[in-house]
This record gives sequence, C-alpha cells and structure tokens, in this order.
Amino acid sequence: MIPTIASRLDAVRHDMAQDNLDAFIIPRADEYLGEYVPERNERLQWISHFTGSAGMVIVLKNSAAIFVDGRYTLQVRQQVDSELFQYLSLTDTPQIQWLVDTLSADARIGYDPRLHPLSWQKKANTEFTKASMQLIAIKDNPIDNHWQNRPAASAAPAILFDHHSAGKTSQQKRLEIGNIVNHSGADMALITSLDSFCWLLNIRGSDVPRLPVILGSALLHANGDMLVFTQLDKLPTGINTHVGTGVSFKAETELEPTLKSLSGSKLLADPHSANAWSQLTAEQAGANLIAGSDPVSLIKAQKNPSELAGIKACHIRDGVAVTRFLAWLDTEVAADNFFDEGQLADKLETFRLSDSQYLEPSFDTISAVGANAAMCHYNHNNGTPALMTNNSLYLVDSGAQYLDGTTDVTRTIAIGQVSDEQRKMVTLVLKGHIALDQARFPRGTTGQQLDGFARQYLWQHGFDYDHGTGHGVGHCLNVHEGPQRIGKNSNDVPLLPGMVLSNEPGYYRANEFGIRLENLVYVRPCEALAGIEREMFEFSALTMIPMDSRLIDKSLLTETEINWFNDYHQLVLTTLSPFMQGDELTWLTHATKAI
Amino acid sequence: MIPTIASRLDAVRHDMAQDNLDAFIIPRADEYLGEYVPERNERLQWISHFTGSAGMVIVLKNSAAIFVDGRYTLQVRQQVDSELFQYLSLTDTPQIQWLVDTLSADARIGYDPRLHPLSWQKKANTEFTKASMQLIAIKDNPIDNHWQNRPAASAAPAILFDHHSAGKTSQQKRLEIGNIVNHSGADMALITSLDSFCWLLNIRGSDVPRLPVILGSALLHANGDMLVFTQLDKLPTGINTHVGTGVSFKAETELEPTLKSLSGSKLLADPHSANAWSQLTAEQAGANLIAGSDPVSLIKAQKNPSELAGIKACHIRDGVAVTRFLAWLDTEVAADNFFDEGQLADKLETFRLSDSQYLEPSFDTISAVGANAAMCHYNHNNGTPALMTNNSLYLVDSGAQYLDGTTDVTRTIAIGQVSDEQRKMVTLVLKGHIALDQARFPRGTTGQQLDGFARQYLWQHGFDYDHGTGHGVGHCLNVHEGPQRIGKNSNDVPLLPGMVLSNEPGYYRANEFGIRLENLVYVRPCEALAGIEREMFEFSALTMIPMDSRLIDKSLLTETEINWFNDYHQLVLTTLSPFMQGDELTWLTHATKAI
Repeated sequence: MIPTIASRLDAVRHDMAQDNLDAFIIPRADEYLGEYVPERNERLQWISHFTGSAGMVIVLKNSAAIFVDGRYTLQVRQQVDSELFQYLSLTDTPQIQWLVDTLSADARIGYDPRLHPLSWQKKANTEFTKASMQLIAIKDNPIDNHWQNRPAASAAPAILFDHHSAGKTSQQKRLEIGNIVNHSGADMALITSLDSFCWLLNIRGSDVPRLPVILGSALLHANGDMLVFTQLDKLPTGINTHVGTGVSFKAETELEPTLKSLSGSKLLADPHSANAWSQLTAEQAGANLIAGSDPVSLIKAQKNPSELAGIKACHIRDGVAVTRFLAWLDTEVAADNFFDEGQLADKLETFRLSDSQYLEPSFDTISAVGANAAMCHYNHNNGTPALMTNNSLYLVDSGAQYLDGTTDVTRTIAIGQVSDEQRKMVTLVLKGHIALDQARFPRGTTGQQLDGFARQYLWQHGFDYDHGTGHGVGHCLNVHEGPQRIGKNSNDVPLLPGMVLSNEPGYYRANEFGIRLENLVYVRPCEALAGIEREMFEFSALTMIPMDSRLIDKSLLTETEINWFNDYHQLVLTTLSPFMQGDELTWLTHATKAI
Repeated sequence: MIPTIASRLDAVRHDMAQDNLDAFIIPRADEYLGEYVPERNERLQWISHFTGSAGMVIVLKNSAAIFVDGRYTLQVRQQVDSELFQYLSLTDTPQIQWLVDTLSADARIGYDPRLHPLSWQKKANTEFTKASMQLIAIKDNPIDNHWQNRPAASAAPAILFDHHSAGKTSQQKRLEIGNIVNHSGADMALITSLDSFCWLLNIRGSDVPRLPVILGSALLHANGDMLVFTQLDKLPTGINTHVGTGVSFKAETELEPTLKSLSGSKLLADPHSANAWSQLTAEQAGANLIAGSDPVSLIKAQKNPSELAGIKACHIRDGVAVTRFLAWLDTEVAADNFFDEGQLADKLETFRLSDSQYLEPSFDTISAVGANAAMCHYNHNNGTPALMTNNSLYLVDSGAQYLDGTTDVTRTIAIGQVSDEQRKMVTLVLKGHIALDQARFPRGTTGQQLDGFARQYLWQHGFDYDHGTGHGVGHCLNVHEGPQRIGKNSNDVPLLPGMVLSNEPGYYRANEFGIRLENLVYVRPCEALAGIEREMFEFSALTMIPMDSRLIDKSLLTETEINWFNDYHQLVLTTLSPFMQGDELTWLTHATKAI
C-alpha cells in the first residue's frame, strides 16, 4: 500500500513530538543547495506531491502550509491536497514572519541545517529570538527516517573530463583558486557548489538531472591541495593521475569529523551558497569562518579558449538540431499536422539525441502554445499539454548538455497567420535584443547597467517583462551560472572576457501570447575599435539558429537593426549549411533570406 | 603678525600632547557634514591653506599629511607647504589604513566626533581596535582653541519661506515626516542635514555659501512636534505663526543636554549623514539608536506642484540670463575681444544679478577654456584664470539660487572654428543626452539602470566619462541633493514623479578639450501613452537655454535625434522670446534655428 500524504505528515509529526517541536520546515533544496535536486532528495515532493522547482512546506502540530510562487499557483492546487495544506505565497508571505505571527512565544521551530544556507539560518535565528521563539537544528531529518522505498543514490561513475577541453588541469585550477583563498586571508575554502566541485577536479557525472555532476564537496587548501568527500565507488580508474598530486578522496561520511578537526583554521565559506550545518559544525569546533563568495565562481565564469572552443562547437551542432526541428515544424504546419506541447518538446529532443556528445536537456523544455506562452516559466508537464492551434505563436525555450558545452535558446515561431499587434511586439523585443547584442562597454560594467538596453523599446510603448535579461551559462555545467547576470536587480559583478550570457528579452500578454528571443553570447574585447581610450568589451553570438522573419515588422526597424538581422542570418546560414542538406538546407536558406 | 602654518601646527600639537595623542584628524566637514561649509568652519583651510572642496589633514607628532583627490593634485602643491605636509591621495591612500601602517601599536588617534559621520567613526574604531590602537574623541577642537580672528557666525536672519511657494505648511510637512519616523519604529528623528532642517520649517537663510539655509538641527517627534536648536536671534518676528504649533526653538547649546535626556527613547538617525557626537551622546545617555536614512530626504526630493511651478519659473528667468550671456559672448568673439575665465564667470553672474529673486551662485562656476575644460571639476580660482583663445571650446557650468528654485546648467560653446573631431565628440555626447532625456521607464526604475543610456554612443566609439550622469537638485536648496542619482554606482532609489535631476553626459580629452551638455529635467508620468500595461514615467526639460548648433555633426544624428534637437530649440525660443528683445532676441532666434 502506498503511504498517503496524511500518513507521511503523521510520521513527521511523530518525530516532531519527540523533539518537542511546534513546527518543522521543509525546503526544496538538498544539502548542496543547487537549482536541481536528485530524485532521492526530493523531500518537498515526498511530503506534499508538489513537483515545482521552488517551494517550502511548514508542518505544524495540527496543520501544514505550502508556499509556492506565482508560477505554481495553479499547479499546487492540482498536486497538493487542500484538506492537508494551506496554500500561501512564497514571495508575499515571508515564511519566518508567518511562523512568528502564527505560533505563540516559546515555540520551538525545527529545521534541518543541511538544507538551508547559513545566511537563512542567521536571519531566521535573529527573527525567532526577537519573538522569544527557538530555532532548533534537528539531527535526523524525519523525512529520511520515514521514507520507504526511497530512490537509491546514483551508481553512475564520474566521467573524467579531458584536460584539453577543460583548458587547464585540475592542478592548475586548484593552484589558481588556492591563491584566491590565500588572498582572502583563509587557510582553506569549503567548496559545496556541485559545479565548482566538479570544475576543480575536471570531472562530470550524472547524479543530478539537468546538471552533469557527481555529488560531493571539498576543502581546498590555499596551497591547492584538496580533500574531496564523495561516494568513492564512483571514481573511475585513473582518477588519481587525472587530478594530479595533492588530492585526497574520502567518503562523504568523513566530512563531519574533518570539519570538527578544523579548530584554529581560517575557513572561507559562502554563507549564501553553503549550508548552515557545515559552517556551524566547523565554527563550533573552533574554526574561524571567513564569509566570502565561492572562490571558484568568478574564475569558472570566464571561459578559457579551450572551453570557448567547445562551447562554439556544440552551439553549431545544437544549431543544426534546432534548425532541423524548426524546418520539420514548418513542414508539419503546412500539412495541417498539429501536435501537443509535449510531442513538440520530445520531437525537438530527437534531433539532439543523434549527437554523440549529447547528455540530456540542460533544463526542462518550455514548449508553450498560444496563451500558455504568456506564463514565462510554463511547463507542459504541470498539467495536460495543450495542442497547437493555427494562427498563433509557439514559444520553445530549450537547451542541451553536451560534453563540450551547454546550450540554451528560445525561439518564437509563427504558426499560420499572426496579427499586426503580435508582429509589433515581437519586433520591439527584437530591437531590445539587438541593442543589447550590439552594446560595447568599458571594463567594470555590470549586467545591471546594460539591462535597460534590452527593455528600452518596450518601455517606450509602456511595456516590460518580469524576468532578468541574461544569466551566465556553464561549460557542460549549470545552465544558470553566476556570478554575472543581466537584470534589474543589484549585481556588482563586472562582465569580463570569456563570460557566457543569455540575451533573452521577452513580452507576455496574459491569456493571449508570449514572446521571447534568446541567444547565448560571450564577452570579448572589442575587435573593431582602433585608437580607443578605454578597454572596451562587446558580445559575440554563440547561438546559430534562425529567428522567424515572418514575425518581424520591418517598418519598425532602423537600417542598422535590419543589417544586424540580415547579418546574423547570413552568419547562421554560412555556419550551419555545411552540416545540412536536402529539404532542410532549402528551408534554412529560405529562413535566413534577407528581409 | 599673521600666524604661520608652522605655528598653527605647533599649537595643535600642543593640545595633542595634553591629550597624549599621536595623531589628530582634521576633515573638511563641519558638524553638519554637508558639501558647503561656512568660512568660520573652514578648519582644513586654517591648518593648511588648502581651499579645495574635499580633503583631510592628519597631524602627527613630528609630521603631517594632507590627502586630496585627483582634482586637486596641482592645487595642493600651490597652496600647501611641502616642508610641512606630505601630499597623499584621498582615494588611493585610505586614511585609516595609512594611520595603521604609519603608527605603532598602542597609538592614540584623536578626532573631533562632531566632524565625522557615525559610520566613519564605527569603521575607524573597528580598524584601530584590530591594530591595537585607540580612537580618542577629543572634547575641544584644538583648532577652535587656537583660531585667532576666527570669522564670526553669520548674523543674517532667517527668511520665512512662503507656504504657497513651498506647497505645504511646516505643520503639514512635520506631520508627514513624523509619520515616516513612526513607521520606522522610532519615537523621534535627529535631523542634522541643513536642507532637511530648513525644508521642514519652510525657512531659508544665508549662513552657508551656495546653500541658502541657516545653521541648526532638530529632533522631530513622530507626532510632528519639533525641537529646533539654532541661533535664536536669527529668527524673525512671526516665526511662531509661520511654523505653526508644535515647534519649540532652543539655543544650539541646548542640543547636548537634550540628547542626554533621551534615555529609553528610540531615536532614528542616519549614521552616514549625522555626526558621531550627536548619536554617541544620545546612545551613551541610554537612547536606542535606529539607523536609517534621513526621513525627510525622499519626500523632499519629490517636488510638489507649487515647488515645481517655482522651479519652472526660475528656469525661464535663468534661461534668459544665460542666453543673454551667450549672445554677449558671441558678439565679443566676433569682435575679437577675448576674456579670461574669471571675467567670463563674473560677466555671466551680472545677467543673473538683475533678477530680484536671485540670491547667489548655487556652486562655484566652472568657467574653462580649451584644455582646462578637460578637468571636469576645474575651478579658475585655483590658479591663474586662463585667457580664451580662438578656435577652441569653452565650457561653462553654472547655476543660481533663486527664492523660487535652484538651477544648474552646462553649455559647451564654439569659440571660432572647431575641428571635425570636436564636433564628432560633442555630437556623441548630445546623442547620449537625448537618449536619456527621451527615456521612458516603469515605476521602480533607478537612475543606475538608466545611466548607460547616456553613455552608449561614447561606448560604441571606445570613450566614456568619469563622473555621474545626473544628480538631484533642491528647491532653493542644495544643488546636489539626494537620494536619487543617475550614475554607474549602486543606487537603489527609484525615480519618482516630481524629482528634479541633471542630465549631464560629457567627454574630456586630456590636454585638449572638454565637453559637457547639461540640462535639468523633472520626472513626470508618461503623458503620450494610451492603453499601457505599466505605470510609466518620463523626463520633462526645465533648462531653457540653446545648445550650440555649430558644434553638431548632423550626419551622426538620426531623424528622431534631429527632431529632438529642433523641438527643444523651438521650445526654448517660444519660452524665452517674450522676455528678450533687440539684438539678443535676434541672436536667440538665430541660435535656435532648425538644423
């Protein structure tokens, strides 16, 4: 018999009673605090059946609440029992304040310190203390205690990632980052972000969906030596030669005693990305915590020439795959064959699957027809996938993990006839995309300073979009990678050569249609300028996939913008045509014709 | 006999010895910590002869150092004796770190807590404590002890500022701001910024050059009642009726005992703008400090309709004055009459002086010919004013305090023939000025997000400028007013209707020429847009003064930009022509002809 959610709540409450807790907090994150979580760590789903990518459950003695954001207000009602859970807004109802308002003084609030960043723990602790409540770190997670038939940990071995495609050996990387650790005044750094961990060792894996890493964490010494805590049987023969001298591999269970042995050490850790448990354990053992950002992050973001070569190569193959999909789609639409959003996403993947270096999607494909595309984070798997209709817009945002890079692209496609209003809005989005793509900027400029370039034409007409304009992208790693970002929110990280970013302005008209035009670009020194006074940077396109000319209102474009559009299509044609043939090549040639 | 700087240093060292101090820190600020300082508070000048607007002196037992920024590296050598002072960079040599590096452990470092913000005191105290040094608050400032013939305090009376031109009575303002104090959780707020202080009381004065205020500070209660500490004999008859009920006036000497009586009170104070002494005095007496920004600042920045009406009116009169100056200048240049920078600045003021509401310049006029204009904060009084030369650019940045508003405008003028390169650079600056002026943006947008709009065309060609693009401007108050700002640096204050800002991109080619095009604008709701989805704002021009068409390369402008330029000149002509006649009107008509 499958346990019901009610019985799972009872089981959690049983453990809460043993610890005399009035509340227990269940976030979506696991101990690595990343965006993607292995199935066996989907604790939020276990307790609620909710499958969204963000959320929190708080179990009280006699009730429970689930907090989700605006993307999931419909989905939570479909997946989560309203008899057992109150639905609350993740953003509008701050959870700590809600607990303060809901519980009485002296309440004891339990949390698993492995599943929250230290910054959250500190804030919660301060707020609860003010309200005469207690934040209690539990030892054993009640969900883990009661999870029957919990999926096993992945047994897939680590992949040794070629030094040539990584551009540097593990040892070079460890010395370089060790130097940063040293400059921060620390003896060693706690590395818990899975992408930083695998990047340092030049390994990849398949422990987490959408993110090609193995699970683990590390202590990196200022001299470049590294203690690695991971599942030892994942490590293939040759790992020691691969990573070079100075790396010791230990079982994950060794992390705790090691942290407890750090008395007197100065330990660099990122309170926003590393979990509370690891830092508090070290601190209680007498280590001195130095709060700072992950020392790997900024170096990893600046792709070296070898990484960039791989990224460019995979974007050409990805461009061929997506272009073949777009050609197929046009042909089917012309033959009056319509598909649902899931079929379209699956079909798109078939074109990528033929690539020998393809691993998996880099995120769940957003395949959205008509009004569904107005929800900018739509997922057709959250309900019944809708069928394409004629005379509408189709939005597809997808990406792939290849052994030589990570892709992410959005195209908006005309299905049949589209309205003048839709063409106007696509063209305003395109103008912003072009303005950002064509920007030049001096060293020191952040993505925040450039964000308005992409929004200005929408703003002129009274429109905007409620998401960032660009995110960093990893090299066969996270499709959402920091520390740089192009958006309205405060971000003080300057854009530097080698950084990969998305350029993805959009427009969403509720209940009608959605538009997004996304290319990946990388930052490089300005090539065309002579005799300049400042060190200037510019973007260069990585994505090689036609945009739908049928959606462009040429009368709204300047000559410069028309040239940009035609030049981009000429580049796409030149780049992809050697790898295409027959009807598909004919389609590409037609699709990239000058407007 | 005039005391020498050496004897003044000796006198300060005499007092230092009595307190057993190894160092004494002398900033430029007085206890109000504003940009402008009355002559009697120019302590930095007294100890060093340095007249720059920013700097710091540190006196050690046997040596002294003066810290100035890049603007003053030449001037400091002319004014300050190198036998007595080491010259150091205000920005590159952080003063606290320099003291830590220079002095030995156990050093005692004296400072006057009235002359530093609390935020500085906290930082200094932390750093010195780390280095086993002591930061010692002195009781009596040694300079005040030894300053013979110190200028007397201004005896000028306060001006009662008409309620109609202020738009609100003092009582309305105090209730409104009191409400903000209440929302911050405080019982009362410490008001030390002179402009906030005078704005709350609807008074102005002439105690500080360039800033029409009287000296004083206040405690504003959450119920709107206010204790005012100022020189009582400045208050004119009728002050009590003018400010309404709830205001008690006390001598400035009463501030200390009042702060000492605040035990148990929750006192809102801005650690960045209020001095350390006032907050530490209250805290040591048992008050609970609530750190927050000046509660007046954001409301004061959003000019009400009456304030805006005055600001618009004074900009028309200021426009007439500056336009008459520009007409005069052209006539003189045509007659081969050349003047020096000081004569030009003085001549410009004569046109403003005829206005009955004119008070004084709102800042020291920047009147810079040729290569001098490449120093963006040039002041001709810091050396020998240079003579205009033919075939060059002249940059004049000036402003006025009027009883109904404050102005600030920069024009760059062709003197004779100019080169194609100069015209290109002026046109790139103009394009940025237009792009910012024409921006529309949703509620919530900060000046930081718009800054790039003004720089984008310079960036395209590899150029930039090293100052902000726009600052707030007061209403017959500070010409540099917060909290909003348009610049590269982090600023999270959204632009709101009624805010006045400068739009002043520039370009500076060292040893050759300087360019700046500055108008003041105010923020208003978008008027032209119908059926929009977001609340959108836009700028509207306040400054009504022609720009020099002879400096524009029309081939670099788009049709939209040409229209902007011609429309602006048509507006200037229509607005100013009723107030001009004869040759001056003829000149204006010619200067505003469509390009």
